[in-house]
Amino acid sequence: MRIALLGGTGAVGEGLALRLGRDTGHELVIGSRDPEKARRCAEDYLERLDESGERATIEGGSNPVATEDADLVVLAVPPEYVVDTIDTVREALDEETIVVSPAVKMHRDGDGFHFERTDVGNSITADVAEAVPANVSVVGSFHNLPAKRLAALDTELGIDTAIVADDEAAAETVAAVVASIEGLRAVFAGPISNAVEVESITPLLINLALNNDDMHDVGVRFT
Amino acid sequence: MRIALLGGTGAVGEGLALRLGRDTGHELVIGSRDPEKARRCAEDYLERLDESGERATIEGGSNPVATEDADLVVLAVPPEYVVDTIDTVREALDEETIVVSPAVKMHRDGDGFHFERTDVGNSITADVAEAVPANVSVVGSFHNLPAKRLAALDTELGIDTAIVADDEAAAETVAAVVASIEGLRAVFAGPISNAVEVESITPLLINLALNNDDMHDVGVRFT
Repeated sequence: MRIALLGGTGAVGEGLALRLGRDTGHELVIGSRDPEKARRCAEDYLERLDESGERATIEGGSNPVATEDADLVVLAVPPEYVVDTIDTVREALDEETIVVSPAVKMHRDGDGFHFERTDVGNSITADVAEAVPANVSVVGSFHNLPAKRLAALDTELGIDTAIVADDEAAAETVAAVVASIEGLRAVFAGPISNAVEVESITPLLINLALNNDDMHDVGVRFT
Repeated sequence: MRIALLGGTGAVGEGLALRLGRDTGHELVIGSRDPEKARRCAEDYLERLDESGERATIEGGSNPVATEDADLVVLAVPPEYVVDTIDTVREALDEETIVVSPAVKMHRDGDGFHFERTDVGNSITADVAEAVPANVSVVGSFHNLPAKRLAALDTELGIDTAIVADDEAAAETVAAVVASIEGLRAVFAGPISNAVEVESITPLLINLALNNDDMHDVGVRFT
C-alpha cells in the first residue's frame, strides 16, 4: 500500500513514518507545503532507519504530489490547516483513496488544555468528512499518540488508537495498518459522529503530563 | 475515614462498596432515597464480603443520614439526580466534607453514546461544585470505571481513574482512597474545568463495547 503522510515533517508524522518504515512494507511519501523540506525529511527518516539496519521506501514531495497514487492519505497537519490542505490535494483524491484524520482542535488556558468542538461537525474528523469529495472515505485515527515516544524507535508502545468511520471497509483497512505497527492496537469506536469523545482524549493526555511527574508523553490503553 | 456512597445501591456504588470494603479499613455508609433499600444493600454487600472471608463496616440509610459525619460523600447517582441529591443532604455538608462526583451526562442515538455538556458548568463535576455550599470541596473521580468488573471481586482491575479538583488537598485525599483499592491508580488531570475531557471517556468506553467483540466492560489506563 502507498501511504502519504501530509504534514509528515511534524511530530506525529515523524513517528508514524519511522514506525511504518520499520514495521511494515508499505511505501511511504512525506508531504509538506515545502517539497524540499519533505524530501530532506524523507532522507533523514531513511538514514535513521538505516542506522537501525532497517530498509524502507520513503519519498518526499509537495502535498499534492505525495497524494497522487496514495491509497491512504494521513492529514497529520495542525487542525487549522486541515481543510486548506484538503483543498490543495483535492484533485488527487478519488473513490479509492482513504483519508485518515488524526488532528484535534483544542485551546489552552490557565487550567490546562481543553477540547474544542469545531463549527461544522463538532470534531476535526467530521470536518474532514465534510471537506473531502463525496466519494472519498474518511477514517479518524492516530489521535491520541505520544509523538516523542512514537519517534523513539527503541521505546515500546503498548497503547491503543481508536478508529471512527462511517465506511466499515475503510475502517478495517486502517485497522490493518495500525495493527502492523508493533505495540499499537486498533479499537473501533463506531461512526464519525463518535469522534468527539476520541479527540477529547488528546487534551486530557497533555493535562495528565502537566499534573503528574511520571506521566510525560503517555498514550491510552483500553483494558 | 467514613465514606458515604449516595446511590450506593446502583452499579458503580456496589462495586465501590465491595472494593473499598475488601481492600480498606474505611467505614462505609450506603445512601439511598429509600433507607430500607440502602440497609438491605449494605447487608447484601457485607454477606458477599463475608463469603470471601472479608470483614468490613457497611451501614445503610437515607441519603441525609448517610451523609452525616461522612468525611467523603460520593454522589454515585444518575446525572439527572445529582443536584436534587445535593439539596437533600446540604445540611450535613460542611467544610470538612469532600464531595466526590463520578456521574457523566450523555445521550444515545443510532451511532452510539455521546458526551453531553451541562448547561451550568459543562461537566457534572463542575455542576456539583456550583451546587454545594461554598466551603465544601468537590473532587471529580471514579468516572470511567467498568461497573460489573468493579463488583466482581475476583477480577483484577489494572486501570486508572482521573482526578480533577480545584482544592489540591482534597484531590490528595481522594487519590489516597483510590490508591487503597487494589489495581486502581489515581492520575491527576488538573482543575475542575478539565473534567469535560475526563467525563467524555465514559461514552467512549460504551462505544468501544458496542463495536469490539472482546471489549465488554473495559476501563482506561494511561501508559
